[in-house]
Amino acid sequence: MAAHEAVAWMREAILAAHAGRLRTPPRVATDLGDGRLVFTTGALQGEWFGYRSYDGFDAEPGEQVVVVHDWQTGTVRGIAVGNELGPRRVGAIGGVAVDALARTDATTLGLVGTGTQAWTQLWAISAVRALSSVAVFSRSEERRNAFVSRASEEFGLSVNAVGSAREAVEGNDLVVLATNSPTPVIDPAWVKDGAFVTTLGPKQVGRAEFGPELIDRADLVVTDSIAQTHAYDPPFVLAGTPQHDRLISLGEVLADHVKGQTVVFCSVGLAGTEAYLLNKLVS
Amino acid sequence: MAAHEAVAWMREAILAAHAGRLRTPPRVATDLGDGRLVFTTGALQGEWFGYRSYDGFDAEPGEQVVVVHDWQTGTVRGIAVGNELGPRRVGAIGGVAVDALARTDATTLGLVGTGTQAWTQLWAISAVRALSSVAVFSRSEERRNAFVSRASEEFGLSVNAVGSAREAVEGNDLVVLATNSPTPVIDPAWVKDGAFVTTLGPKQVGRAEFGPELIDRADLVVTDSIAQTHAYDPPFVLAGTPQHDRLISLGEVLADHVKGQTVVFCSVGLAGTEAYLLNKLVS
Repeated sequence: MAAHEAVAWMREAILAAHAGRLRTPPRVATDLGDGRLVFTTGALQGEWFGYRSYDGFDAEPGEQVVVVHDWQTGTVRGIAVGNELGPRRVGAIGGVAVDALARTDATTLGLVGTGTQAWTQLWAISAVRALSSVAVFSRSEERRNAFVSRASEEFGLSVNAVGSAREAVEGNDLVVLATNSPTPVIDPAWVKDGAFVTTLGPKQVGRAEFGPELIDRADLVVTDSIAQTHAYDPPFVLAGTPQHDRLISLGEVLADHVKGQTVVFCSVGLAGTEAYLLNKLVS
Repeated sequence: MAAHEAVAWMREAILAAHAGRLRTPPRVATDLGDGRLVFTTGALQGEWFGYRSYDGFDAEPGEQVVVVHDWQTGTVRGIAVGNELGPRRVGAIGGVAVDALARTDATTLGLVGTGTQAWTQLWAISAVRALSSVAVFSRSEERRNAFVSRASEEFGLSVNAVGSAREAVEGNDLVVLATNSPTPVIDPAWVKDGAFVTTLGPKQVGRAEFGPELIDRADLVVTDSIAQTHAYDPPFVLAGTPQHDRLISLGEVLADHVKGQTVVFCSVGLAGTEAYLLNKLVS
């Protein structure tokens, strides 16, 4: 799957959800005593229905399963096992957001975090903007150096490790926060005017990689699923704050060509998009 | 999968559920507008967790998916696609019930219904009792003749079509009701003393192949899942009746060696047993 394809497909999916053609009900879960199974489902009217399953059994997540069925016959069109499709789809949604909302002349990117989510954001963003430099920070020097080597090689970009989150943020057109941090990882004052910031990490009250101050730094605040921000338990980090009311959906941005200057994108995971992607891959 | 293996595995599963080692929480579903997706889940402590998914999108059901994960690592041990495993597991549970509760010298069987559920009951019952004759009735002469041909050939049994439900029931040691009938298909007076009757078909208020009178005919009434009888919507056909209070679980029957004379078994589908079977098949 090429990044530009994945981004185009996720753009379609977000618009279909906005138009009500892609149904994405709230996730459901069952309690199995020592853990739980969670199911996110979706259906594209007249085309397919499907789901993703994942567990909450251990510290380390098990393999996810994505299934897509033909709408008419109910036969299985495809099954994906493993933890590759999920982050690719999150990356591609991030690519859609950058493409719609970042300055067209954005060329510099800073990544805070060097895990899978940071990787797939870089993968998708490099398909929608011509990046001249990528600055990478994570607390582990070993991990950031490994990320730099792999990214330089795979994407042929100028990628450099930096020694602080501040260096990854200051002066850059695009900023990706993709940590597991329970507390804010950047000072919003570091974000330059006109920058685009995506946050992938924890977003719950008591455990979030950003706070309401980051929202205050932006003149436009977007998420891929407002419904999902209301479904968090513990609640979404902005729940009950004036900042939460400022969120608009990426679907609305695309449908109504909304623009901003300094933009924050809260990536929360629009349901049904994993099956959407799988259906494209097997069609 | 041999019938005697499947029956032995389902016996293990029923005992594990009775002992609390096999967790089987109520099913969950999501509403996708034109249909729904349903998930039954289960976990055998320390061994595996898994689920079955099925849809409610069309008159004809789509393919079911059963997934089993390793408990420790969360990796997928096996996936089954299609509508074979479900009825085999229901058949095997029926075989467990017959083996535990029917007279050991039961040799004659009557089937009312000639669909997949009737077939897999015959498959399992023939593994636990030495059948000397099988009488088969369904409203379609064509279907009952086809069933007789296939069953005679596959099981090497004396199988005969009969012209009425009464002929399939009267005088037989074992009776299986496996219809789609919304109204009672037999008169309980036809059931002989000491017979064992299983019901597989509809069991909801306003749509059931049997009524409370069949329960009155028995001195022991058993089900594979009392929890499931409480989860029906529309309600279980016996809900709110004194007959409902008489139900005991097959797990209790096995654990406590309960016996009866004339027995009715209400097969409702113990959750988690599809994944149990799949785990055995891939182990």
